[in-house]
Amino acid sequence: MSSPHQPKVTSLVDLPSSEAKWIKLQKAIYRDARGNERIWEIASRKTTSKSGVDAVAMGNIIYHPSKPPSTILVIQFRPPLNAFTVEWPAGLIDANESAEEAAVRELYEETGYHGKVVSTSPAVAADPGMTNANMKLCMVEIQLKEGDPEPEQHLDEGEEIQRVNVPLAELYDRLEEFAKEGYVVAAKLYHWAAGVQYAIDHPKLFEKVGSKEGA
Amino acid sequence: MSSPHQPKVTSLVDLPSSEAKWIKLQKAIYRDARGNERIWEIASRKTTSKSGVDAVAMGNIIYHPSKPPSTILVIQFRPPLNAFTVEWPAGLIDANESAEEAAVRELYEETGYHGKVVSTSPAVAADPGMTNANMKLCMVEIQLKEGDPEPEQHLDEGEEIQRVNVPLAELYDRLEEFAKEGYVVAAKLYHWAAGVQYAIDHPKLFEKVGSKEGA
Repeated sequence: MSSPHQPKVTSLVDLPSSEAKWIKLQKAIYRDARGNERIWEIASRKTTSKSGVDAVAMGNIIYHPSKPPSTILVIQFRPPLNAFTVEWPAGLIDANESAEEAAVRELYEETGYHGKVVSTSPAVAADPGMTNANMKLCMVEIQLKEGDPEPEQHLDEGEEIQRVNVPLAELYDRLEEFAKEGYVVAAKLYHWAAGVQYAIDHPKLFEKVGSKEGA
Repeated sequence: MSSPHQPKVTSLVDLPSSEAKWIKLQKAIYRDARGNERIWEIASRKTTSKSGVDAVAMGNIIYHPSKPPSTILVIQFRPPLNAFTVEWPAGLIDANESAEEAAVRELYEETGYHGKVVSTSPAVAADPGMTNANMKLCMVEIQLKEGDPEPEQHLDEGEEIQRVNVPLAELYDRLEEFAKEGYVVAAKLYHWAAGVQYAIDHPKLFEKVGSKEGA
């Protein structure tokens, strides 16, 4: 860290729901499949956009004429974990903004790169047993030219986000190393990298029936 | 659904933190990298196990002598989303239980299958901007013999979980279909499947330097 201060949570106190601005607790009463009435506790965001989707993450691929294909990760202090996390760039979707618009905007703010969204996932659930928080994964391509300088970030006041460029071929191993060094890797990024690695290590498991040539 | 009732949230009310049993809101005061004091709102579980890890998910691979390799997914009504979700089997880790012990136990309870844990991820963060909730991904192998009957589940009272066996080669496409049909796919499972699919569709992006044969 080049920062003069090591970020740190200095106090953690219970927060009455009435004082919370960003998140809230709710109690759902629901009828189960047997017709019984039951209760479930839920943590929700107060800020879900009009589209009904909270957040977008940018699964980005950087193409460069003479460097291996890579992806840019962001490292930042996350107070909920009192730790630095390793994640793909991501952010909340603003009101009246599409997931794709938020993806291009947040990628530019957090990394300085201009990207092109090439695919968007359905809205998927962050932690379905605890919260209704959801997100979309946008896959974004970034095309660089020889000699392009590293762009400037455009962070909000108070935001401190470091960028790390990782060759895609090394992504899974690098995430394992980050975890050993005390960083907390985001589950979604980890799962994507683990899926890539599993497909590379076990190609026959994923062969479609009828495409057996070379097996 | 063969169930006589369609599960449904019938009421959703604010829950004072003091009345919540499973989750809570907290306010973190933290010092940022510039030395400024800031505030962040956090949703936490009250039940984190002694190991410091909340949950485990079972990324399972089913091997069968005459059927394509597959994975078992679970479909259940999730009150936070007021919807049926598609997830890998998962559960909270009990006190004094390891992630691997919880993985074998929960897989047996939710699916009836006996599995063998072949790898365990670091603790990764479910939704780092909102919560300290974390989990480990255990990859689990299930070896079936010809003619093995589908095992019985061993669910808790009130649990209603359906199993779906999906060939690995079709996993990504099936998740996209589930989403179109109104199910909510869990982000972690989706990211794993998307990583697999990306590696299959773009093998050259993941080639390590020095392994260019055939490129």
